[in-house]
Amino acid sequence: MHIRRADQVKGQPVEMEGAQNVKMRLLLGRADGAPTFAMRHFEVAPGGHTPRHQHPYEHGIQVLKGSGTVEVDGATHVLQPGDCLFIEPDSLHQFRADRGESLQFICIVPTTFDCGKPTPGS
Amino acid sequence: MHIRRADQVKGQPVEMEGAQNVKMRLLLGRADGAPTFAMRHFEVAPGGHTPRHQHPYEHGIQVLKGSGTVEVDGATHVLQPGDCLFIEPDSLHQFRADRGESLQFICIVPTTFDCGKPTPGS
Repeated sequence: MHIRRADQVKGQPVEMEGAQNVKMRLLLGRADGAPTFAMRHFEVAPGGHTPRHQHPYEHGIQVLKGSGTVEVDGATHVLQPGDCLFIEPDSLHQFRADRGESLQFICIVPTTFDCGKPTPGS
Repeated sequence: MHIRRADQVKGQPVEMEGAQNVKMRLLLGRADGAPTFAMRHFEVAPGGHTPRHQHPYEHGIQVLKGSGTVEVDGATHVLQPGDCLFIEPDSLHQFRADRGESLQFICIVPTTFDCGKPTPGS
């Protein structure tokens, strides 16, 4: 068992192409022995965004603080704390802190995809 | 894609033996086509508790609101919003709202265990 808080974990800037002003903190991952899913804390600074991309595994998202928008397959939705999102495999998606404040959320991914490949950032 | 908020989902009382004053809201589950993991919102009313039990799959927990304690394999820990917990498979665990207020958290489970059995409450 472990208890880990985002404010006790050093944030790593997300260096992927298309990401801007995004930090990730790994709360539960493969290095902890997580068998099925990983939990990551994301903080997008005002004006920042995650890559606009797609991949063959899903996201489960829990919005914690702040506000912003998400674009999924061409439709844009405003986000607020308490929102839980299911972003299906292969959906084209991007999170943006475009409402004057930062956006903080938990993003869950499977630890593996495509019959055993380790999921990036898990 | 869906966006679902706990305050828009009707809570179901948890009827398992050993549970008291616990409501569950399914935010993402097998019925939504979730391939790997399910996200459930739990609300334990003051004085309530989840079953003290164990099972062969893990929990990932994100505490959202309130306070309480968790017992895992005989050790008790105080919980506060922002805590992320990894409760490993087969750990004996119980969540308690024993600090005068309710306890709200997200609990993530794999959608299947033991080579394909559907996880209860997913």
